[in-house]
Amino acid sequence: MSGSAFGTIFRLATFGESHGPGVGGVVDGCPSGIPLDEAMIQAELDRRKPGQGPASTARKEKDLVRILSGVFEGRTTGTPIGFLIENTDQRSRDYSKIKDIYRPGHADMPYDAKYGFRDYRGGGRASGRETAARVAGGAVALALLAQEGIQVFAYTLELGGIPARPLDVEAAQDKPFGSPDVNTVPLWEERVREVKSRGDSIGGVVEIKAVGVPAGLGEPVFDKLDARLAYALMSIGAVKAVEIGAGAIASRLTGGENNDRMTPRGFASNNAGGVLGGVSNGQEVIARIHVKPIPSIALEQQTVTSSGEPAVLSVGGRHDVSAIPRINPVAKAMVALTLADFLLMQRRMQSGS
Amino acid sequence: MSGSAFGTIFRLATFGESHGPGVGGVVDGCPSGIPLDEAMIQAELDRRKPGQGPASTARKEKDLVRILSGVFEGRTTGTPIGFLIENTDQRSRDYSKIKDIYRPGHADMPYDAKYGFRDYRGGGRASGRETAARVAGGAVALALLAQEGIQVFAYTLELGGIPARPLDVEAAQDKPFGSPDVNTVPLWEERVREVKSRGDSIGGVVEIKAVGVPAGLGEPVFDKLDARLAYALMSIGAVKAVEIGAGAIASRLTGGENNDRMTPRGFASNNAGGVLGGVSNGQEVIARIHVKPIPSIALEQQTVTSSGEPAVLSVGGRHDVSAIPRINPVAKAMVALTLADFLLMQRRMQSGS
Amino acid sequence: MSGSAFGTIFRLATFGESHGPGVGGVVDGCPSGIPLDEAMIQAELDRRKPGQGPASTARKEKDLVRILSGVFEGRTTGTPIGFLIENTDQRSRDYSKIKDIYRPGHADMPYDAKYGFRDYRGGGRASGRETAARVAGGAVALALLAQEGIQVFAYTLELGGIPARPLDVEAAQDKPFGSPDVNTVPLWEERVREVKSRGDSIGGVVEIKAVGVPAGLGEPVFDKLDARLAYALMSIGAVKAVEIGAGAIASRLTGGENNDRMTPRGFASNNAGGVLGGVSNGQEVIARIHVKPIPSIALEQQTVTSSGEPAVLSVGGRHDVSAIPRINPVAKAMVALTLADFLLMQRRMQSGS
Amino acid sequence: MSGSAFGTIFRLATFGESHGPGVGGVVDGCPSGIPLDEAMIQAELDRRKPGQGPASTARKEKDLVRILSGVFEGRTTGTPIGFLIENTDQRSRDYSKIKDIYRPGHADMPYDAKYGFRDYRGGGRASGRETAARVAGGAVALALLAQEGIQVFAYTLELGGIPARPLDVEAAQDKPFGSPDVNTVPLWEERVREVKSRGDSIGGVVEIKAVGVPAGLGEPVFDKLDARLAYALMSIGAVKAVEIGAGAIASRLTGGENNDRMTPRGFASNNAGGVLGGVSNGQEVIARIHVKPIPSIALEQQTVTSSGEPAVLSVGGRHDVSAIPRINPVAKAMVALTLADFLLMQRRMQSGS
Repeated sequence: MSGSAFGTIFRLATFGESHGPGVGGVVDGCPSGIPLDEAMIQAELDRRKPGQGPASTARKEKDLVRILSGVFEGRTTGTPIGFLIENTDQRSRDYSKIKDIYRPGHADMPYDAKYGFRDYRGGGRASGRETAARVAGGAVALALLAQEGIQVFAYTLELGGIPARPLDVEAAQDKPFGSPDVNTVPLWEERVREVKSRGDSIGGVVEIKAVGVPAGLGEPVFDKLDARLAYALMSIGAVKAVEIGAGAIASRLTGGENNDRMTPRGFASNNAGGVLGGVSNGQEVIARIHVKPIPSIALEQQTVTSSGEPAVLSVGGRHDVSAIPRINPVAKAMVALTLADFLLMQRRMQSGS
Repeated sequence: MSGSAFGTIFRLATFGESHGPGVGGVVDGCPSGIPLDEAMIQAELDRRKPGQGPASTARKEKDLVRILSGVFEGRTTGTPIGFLIENTDQRSRDYSKIKDIYRPGHADMPYDAKYGFRDYRGGGRASGRETAARVAGGAVALALLAQEGIQVFAYTLELGGIPARPLDVEAAQDKPFGSPDVNTVPLWEERVREVKSRGDSIGGVVEIKAVGVPAGLGEPVFDKLDARLAYALMSIGAVKAVEIGAGAIASRLTGGENNDRMTPRGFASNNAGGVLGGVSNGQEVIARIHVKPIPSIALEQQTVTSSGEPAVLSVGGRHDVSAIPRINPVAKAMVALTLADFLLMQRRMQSGS
Repeated sequence: MSGSAFGTIFRLATFGESHGPGVGGVVDGCPSGIPLDEAMIQAELDRRKPGQGPASTARKEKDLVRILSGVFEGRTTGTPIGFLIENTDQRSRDYSKIKDIYRPGHADMPYDAKYGFRDYRGGGRASGRETAARVAGGAVALALLAQEGIQVFAYTLELGGIPARPLDVEAAQDKPFGSPDVNTVPLWEERVREVKSRGDSIGGVVEIKAVGVPAGLGEPVFDKLDARLAYALMSIGAVKAVEIGAGAIASRLTGGENNDRMTPRGFASNNAGGVLGGVSNGQEVIARIHVKPIPSIALEQQTVTSSGEPAVLSVGGRHDVSAIPRINPVAKAMVALTLADFLLMQRRMQSGS
Repeated sequence: MSGSAFGTIFRLATFGESHGPGVGGVVDGCPSGIPLDEAMIQAELDRRKPGQGPASTARKEKDLVRILSGVFEGRTTGTPIGFLIENTDQRSRDYSKIKDIYRPGHADMPYDAKYGFRDYRGGGRASGRETAARVAGGAVALALLAQEGIQVFAYTLELGGIPARPLDVEAAQDKPFGSPDVNTVPLWEERVREVKSRGDSIGGVVEIKAVGVPAGLGEPVFDKLDARLAYALMSIGAVKAVEIGAGAIASRLTGGENNDRMTPRGFASNNAGGVLGGVSNGQEVIARIHVKPIPSIALEQQTVTSSGEPAVLSVGGRHDVSAIPRINPVAKAMVALTLADFLLMQRRMQSGS
């Protein structure tokens, strides 16, 4: 529980703040011989970068990744894969105004309580900036999964209360708002414009689907596949709820309605979301995350200073209106990291395999 | 990721199946000097035992816990606390009929895919029986938390689609169905009777609240307090969704609505559920779990055998109609284990503390 | 670092003190389908039990192991294997005399500094009694290794300064003193008698050899095979030095002397002890431990009480003259646990394997 | 057991090969508020750099460290400390000759067996180059220990069979060969010259001493302080034996000779090396490592190619004659990392502390 590492066998350790030299990480435990290069990681990072649409800030981070070790002649060597993404867009400016004001919805206050000392120039490790390292590490996991025929997709199911139908989930990651339904895009654009004009922000719902997952992944009792997915996804800053398969609605079904019947041709439904008893059952693995609205808003908010004095805050500057769709490749990365870890774990669970 | 252990510093490892000699575990990392005896553990176990009301089976497990180590003269010694709960209600019977039939909603099929070999007499580690060891380990965590002024409550918010108001959450654990609202009890009793008569089952929603949690618990980035709570709670067999604070509904609020304003007298609301940036903020920590209906039902269900032949199954015998309220002390235990781990972790995060 | 668990994938957690109800443990991560029963574990435990020869106490512990989970129809199921060895030889007696006296060479003083509270009736977790759980867990590892054609032998190379030749290392575990050389036995018997008559104790050297270990086990950089072996072996109470292959003497050789030449028929020597760069090279894996004399002696020793007053102590009662040979099966168990963990780890390190 | 990470609470993860862009790492779990800057890390790195005396190669690596995160205004923030040491001395040259030849005493062969694929340009993770990241991470640990009044010293006790007396252990790290005895230096210089002229190499013995260690550090049963020290030190490439306190010689003493008597003024001796029952007792913590001779020698050696054909190898180029004294700051770093981890662990083991 060092806090900044994820996974047991396939393990990602990350570092870096929004206002330091850069963010990066180390992937340890990746098998040798997996095709990998910087372009494969960069492609995922590009899906996370700002300026991806009307919901995003105009801030231009280049987010160029550099692999520092563990890859030779286009393949992994089995040794740790170090990588670095330098921060390039660091304007020097005056932080004296915000230094002592606790921003509502942010980690300023609990971080002070925890560390007694804080880099006041940004959110530090609570900044969304750290997710770049997740995406880079996740890209390594995706490369491993691809070798096994496993693919992961993340797509937006709802933005600011307006739903989309999951029509084309595979293409969604390169569509506006990560939408699987082109007809929804104009509605979402309108919603974003309206919220932005009021200086407010919105949240939404993202679904992640993994296809090609073999039966048998996940470890009883505590390290169930769904438990680790919930852990992975809830660790993303803005996520307030995680569902697996039918999710919350399952609590209102009867056993007869919720049980997925089995037939000689396979399961007749997938309320389980591909997981039974914490172990994958060969169906698509499905999770959903509920994303809160961005807490940094231009609207004036009542708050306090670090010494407890009342204050009023209006957060200016370049802020996204929603964490969606930039959070989508992050969620995809976290699911990929989880599956890669279980895939390697499972390779040793049957005698003689 | 050995699978059957939870926690980093305060760590519980469990073992045991439904049809073996017993279930038990080891708590390692508990500080010395904490008052603890078998009665304290037994009290929690008694809340989990069957026959707790109309939703429960008549099966009478005694579930008597025996402490095997780590306690001397009524206090913990700082060494591992081993404990054992012997299985006493093991009737020998004929398993040949169910041996090869995959029960819908159960782990039979993925366990076979995982292990290639299975104790067909019960759910093995996927059986709810394993949760007795969670509750026993959680009782040790609760003893530690009590020393620090932290209490944890679990109460039923919804059963079979019928909601309850959180009127008296502290007393709920010893009320029928774990209900915080006595007026709801007759409605739930009626719902359970009706479902039982049809041979079906129901799910529900349980909320867990921790009071007295100091600000500063939780480790950025991956080991956020909410991430570990989601991990802990989703690892309970029947849970399909986990929410923190406002949870899923936060995705439909704007930033202006969702942000908890801060005042010199504290936070003005608790949409965050006591966690900001993954670290506790001193408010009540609140989580909700959505529990699926029990998959073992008397209704005839279409399924297959392990060799893929179609089959029809009606699960007879002694089965609960709902995992609620027996799941409530399990959820309480998992939250306690999570908090105990973070509490010990935090003791070393400020220089000079 | 919960302290009482060892291993990452194949993981043993233990509990139990010398003066409590018993010692036991949980093996998590053992693959399914491995032949295992209580007799296999008992055979190893019997090699550790007291009264094994002139160097041992007359105390008769039965040390009967009971498997509590994880085994079905004579094979492992892949779920945690819980086991318990009840303490049967607990005479009630008066501890008031030793309660406050720090025994030289024992953990009494540092345990008080660590925990501030201690079960004064025995060594607690610092008692050799805890090694019974290591041996039982190690027996499970040995069962796994046997499936892969790996065997582990431990034999005494020196006792009280008198060396033995490694003539028959395979049979040694069932010979007096664990000796690989029958001619040495009378010399050791004489040495033990003499030391015993003076109320003193002796140490010695034990070598552990693993044959059939495939090349490729061990993880760079920190989790080298030799590093984990040193960790495993130094964790046994009485061990003060660990050597691999040529060991300490290698520091006095030149590179030309120490390097093991390679030929088309294999290595020409084994100074490396079967490990190069932390990874097994296919040769026999060889480690040696240097065991200190038993600190509990009848000779009068100068010491202090817990309040710092001078005191004189003569430890009466039933104490071994040497930790050898009872330590031999413990060392064997620790090597087996280490190899089992690496064996499972390695199953996933080559893509496509 | 991801392999390239060390520690549980205070945890170092490293990456990097000898022939890639650089080596680096992440320290996670360092408390906030510890004074730290690049100069403090650089000072330790400079003690490890080549060209430190007659035993070293003339190769000039600059080994300049750059802190990438976790430090703000000269103090640690409690978040991960990322660092990078770029490789600057990478001459491009022809590797075709050594590509397929297994170097005796090196990891080439077992790495091929393990990964099936290898960066043939150098030792990869088995290269001594990785130890730069250990030293940098260890410098962070040393900064933490300094806050608690703990210091760590490493000094050479023997080189090529010629011993030194431990006269001035504190100054030794900045003396030729890391010698604690200036009179020994000319003898060692002569020995090195002679060995170098023959194209051979030598090993030696290094002792590490930690002063100011409070009683109570170390976790029974498996994570004993001495066990973790043995793990830490044996993980350094060239180490073949580890001793604690009296070490190997303790096996030839009687209990009466080996036990450290206790007096009202403290222990009368320190055969234990500061550790009893795996827990520090307040005395100096003392360990010794036995270092094998450098395997890369100019002497012609018999070996094989990767396809098993006989070959003859003479390793030219810039190689040290001994791993000493460059290994000394590495050993110091590993002891510091181990102590830092236990120090933080201990902060939570007494109730109310």
